[in-house]
This record gives sequence, structure tokens and C-alpha cells, in this order.
Amino acid sequence: MKIEFLGTGAGLPTKQRNVSSLALDLTAEIGSVWLFDCGEGTQHQILRTTIKPRRIDKIFITHLHGDHINGLVGLLSSRSFQNGESLVQIYGPSGIKTYVNCHLSLTGTKLAYPIQFIEVEDQSYYETKHFTITVKELEHGLASFGYRISEKAKPGQLQVDKLLAQGIKPGPIYQQIKENEQTQLPDGRLLTRADFLGAAKPGKEICVLGDTRHPHKFAGFVSDCDLLIHEATFSHLDVAHAHQFYHSTATEVALLAKQANVKQLILTHISARYQGDQINKLADEAQAIFANTLIAEDLLQVDLTNH
Amino acid sequence: MKIEFLGTGAGLPTKQRNVSSLALDLTAEIGSVWLFDCGEGTQHQILRTTIKPRRIDKIFITHLHGDHINGLVGLLSSRSFQNGESLVQIYGPSGIKTYVNCHLSLTGTKLAYPIQFIEVEDQSYYETKHFTITVKELEHGLASFGYRISEKAKPGQLQVDKLLAQGIKPGPIYQQIKENEQTQLPDGRLLTRADFLGAAKPGKEICVLGDTRHPHKFAGFVSDCDLLIHEATFSHLDVAHAHQFYHSTATEVALLAKQANVKQLILTHISARYQGDQINKLADEAQAIFANTLIAEDLLQVDLTNH
Repeated sequence: MKIEFLGTGAGLPTKQRNVSSLALDLTAEIGSVWLFDCGEGTQHQILRTTIKPRRIDKIFITHLHGDHINGLVGLLSSRSFQNGESLVQIYGPSGIKTYVNCHLSLTGTKLAYPIQFIEVEDQSYYETKHFTITVKELEHGLASFGYRISEKAKPGQLQVDKLLAQGIKPGPIYQQIKENEQTQLPDGRLLTRADFLGAAKPGKEICVLGDTRHPHKFAGFVSDCDLLIHEATFSHLDVAHAHQFYHSTATEVALLAKQANVKQLILTHISARYQGDQINKLADEAQAIFANTLIAEDLLQVDLTNH
Repeated sequence: MKIEFLGTGAGLPTKQRNVSSLALDLTAEIGSVWLFDCGEGTQHQILRTTIKPRRIDKIFITHLHGDHINGLVGLLSSRSFQNGESLVQIYGPSGIKTYVNCHLSLTGTKLAYPIQFIEVEDQSYYETKHFTITVKELEHGLASFGYRISEKAKPGQLQVDKLLAQGIKPGPIYQQIKENEQTQLPDGRLLTRADFLGAAKPGKEICVLGDTRHPHKFAGFVSDCDLLIHEATFSHLDVAHAHQFYHSTATEVALLAKQANVKQLILTHISARYQGDQINKLADEAQAIFANTLIAEDLLQVDLTNH
């Protein structure tokens, strides 16, 4: 499980930062890549990574501003030419279906695969075999959402010592014991799995929030997550400007991370007004409050496997 | 007057070639830049040039396929943040207005300037102070157009020798003679401008054609132009494929250039199947028929001022 940042700028692309997109690469876990937002040029950024577009099977759109979605139809279209044949599910605010379909029909684009649109609301909840997805409405002037992706707990390891102590030797029986609640041995004994498993391993919890102001309001939603990815368009020196345009400051988000007891914070969606040393100052501003903070940059990869 | 190629690939962006767009830079002549097509990432390519988005005041869309227009709304939106306040005229096939407006309204984008949509048809004709614009419908499975941009002739130079021979000495009177059909001298003589001007200087003629098959059909439209910019998605080795997908081959376009007596040919919209030495072979294929042929590449500039 890793995160790859494809665009970490705000509003306009610059030479340093493309507009918003990031990939949650679950190739190792379930063979999938999940995308969060898809600003213009996202498919171009993907060319600079090892991500295979055909593996993208869920796309989560936080809100319908152009710098978060103007690359969506191009990506869907190119995926069709790159052997993408499997269903893509697009989660997003009401309007996302009209946006994509209007675009596809006017450009005469036919995709080689089906799309399922899932228009989300505050507190929407979805479940897959390995994950749950919870949605929270934010505060951005138009509908903007955060997504909490929770990996389900993995069963503990089989405690081989205990099995050997009972005279049960390694073999296919171990797999049976692991996979079933109870297993009858050839000698008639009935084993209960729970007695031979170590503690379940909790899954990772990742929160990706769209553009918003007043991030402190979402402490409950992001509480105790392993990784919070949040916009910090501005420094707190520009807090009035941030509020006026429904954005957050690095200070506000660091306070949220601290209050919500998250393990790591990555700030993204950085205004082009901050360059070079000002980025270090933005990091200092947040780290003074919440030490485990990073400022994202384009193509930054964060491996969460052994996080 | 110069041409700058912003995207010279076909269908999908690659690391070498972005999808279609080119700029006709008229900054020196009339302070404007005119754009032809606007594939995804065009605004990113503009960041690598000296083009100022606020100077783009006409955009000509050849057809509504995504690789020719998916960057349009992003560019319009960014222009708004980059001090673009003047009218933009968008010429394109029927549907271009719905496409842009659907996009702007669903993304909640408000521009700081007005847009005028001009939906073109076969043989549409427009005139500005310095140029005429003629439109030709091509053959691409959906409505696709070519644009012929004709600079109006510039008046000839004042023939100073003739004026001196008449005893008229240099001074503000020269400007008057140049600007008016007739000028009365202080001594009462009436001069007719035509008698003192050299030959008018013909303007440049540039043809930019959208995707099409059977380019020979458009020889009349492009005849005798200074520069023909035409797609050559495929080599003639793939001619059946080209016809099937409504595209042209390098050979076909070189034959058109020869037949139509154009001065220079630039081929663009090159399929990603041709890389490295295959590009040289594509050039050889065309140059064997029409010597003054170039294969465009991204960010290629062609100065037409002293062409």
C-alpha cells in the first residue's frame, strides 16, 4: 500500500506542481489503484510513474472544481486505449455523472468498459471485501467531500508453537485451521481457531480530504487515522484570505492533526505563491504544532506497508 | 508572425508529444495569439513558452474529439487568473458552445471575461482588420474543419526617389502622402498616393487542417499557401488503417502539398507508434514527394516573418 502524489498545487498548474490528484496504490494488496481527484494533466503525470491506468478501478472526486476534475475524461478515454476493460467506479458529488456524460457524448468518446457513478452525500458509507469507505461533507462553498478509507483488520498469525505443543505437525491442516472457525482433526479433536491465532492486525486508515475551510470541524471524522492528507493552500499569515476563499492554512490543519491524534499528516494543494524557502517555512509552521508533517510534492511516494 | 507547436501527437499524450495544439503568434503584428485546438495539457505546454495566455483572443477548434479540446476549459479558466480580461472568440463545430458551457457551469467556473462562440460551417468566412479566415469541412467521421488564415496585403513602400524628383523633401508630408489616397501640397499640387507607392506586399497565407482522410480533396482550399499544417497520423505503409480511422498518411499529404503548390508543409498529429528513427522515415516518405516538408515536434517554432 502506497500513496503517490500526482499533483500537489492549487488552482493553476505550475512547472513545479500540477493540479490535484493522488493515487492510493493497492496493487500489492488487491491489484487495484484508487485515484483521488483528477486535475488536468493527471494522465501526463501517470506517464512519469509505474501506475498502470487499467488498474485504476475506483476514482474518488472530492468536488467539482476544474483543478480537481479537468483531467478525468482524458484519463478515462486514454485508459480505454491502454487495455482498460474492467469497470471503473467513480465516487463524487451530485453532478459528476452529468459532467462526465456531457463530455463523453459531445466529444463522441466511446469507452471500452462500463462506468458506475456513485454520487456521495455526507455520511455515505460503502464496503468492499477489504475496505470500508466513509464520506464526510466539508465546507468549501460548493459540495466538497472527504473520504476515509479503512482497511479491514487482517487475521492474526497462526501460533505454530501452540499447535506443535498439541502434537499437530505442519501440513495442509494448518491452512484449514486458519481458514475455518473450527476444524476437526483426524483423531477426532475439535480445534477452535481463535485459540491458535495471534492478535488480529488492524488495517490502515487513510483520510483524504477535499478543499475546505475550518478543518477543526472534521476532527471526529479523521480521528486516530494513520495518515491524513489535507489541503493547506495557505500559510496562517494569509488566514483571512484562506477563510474568504474556503481554504485551510498549514497551522489550522496541524492543529486538526494534533487534536484528532492522527499518526502522520501530509499537506498538499499548496498555492503557487509559496516557492523555494517559503515551502520550508510552511513546513516549519505546521511542524511546530504537529511534528510528523510533510509537505507533498509531485511524484512523492509514501509507502504505508510498514508504516 | 510565428507558429509554435504545443502538441504534435495523436490520440494519447506521450512523454515526447502532447495532444494537439498550436499557436499562431501574432504578438508582433497585432498583439494577439491565436490558438488552434487545445488538447489536455495545452496550458502546461504554454508554461514552457513565452506565450502570454491573456494575449490569446481567438481559439479555432478543428473538431470535438477529446485530444483536440480537453484542455480548453482549463486554459480558459487559468487565463482568468492570469489577468486575462479581454474577449475570447472561440470558432468551432456546432456543439462547442454546449461543451464549454456545460463544463463551466458544472464546475462552477466564472470567467473574468466574455466568450463569443462562432459555430462554423463549410465555407464560413470571417474578416478582421488584418486577416480573413476561410473554413472548409473535411472528412473525419464527425464534423472536422480546416482554417485558412490570410493576412491582408500590406501597402507598398513610399518611393522616396520619385518624391525627391518632384522636389518634395522628407518631413511629416511623407506620412500624409502614405496615409491618404490624395494629398494637396502647400504649393497647391494634388498628389495621388498610388503614383508614389511601390507594389503592395502580399500577406502570409497559412492553412491549418483538422483530422481528415482523403486530403487530396482539399487541394483547392489550400492552394498556393505559404504554409500548410496538416495531420499525418500514419505512414503510407499503414494506409488502410489510416482510411479506416479517417486519418491521412505522410505520402497523401505530401501529394496534396505538391498538387496544391504550397510553399512549405509541416506534418503533425503523429501516431505514438512512430518513434526515433521511424520519424525520420516518415519525413523521408513525405520529402521524396514534397521536399520542403518538416515533421513537427513539441515546442518547435517556425518564424514566418521573413519566410
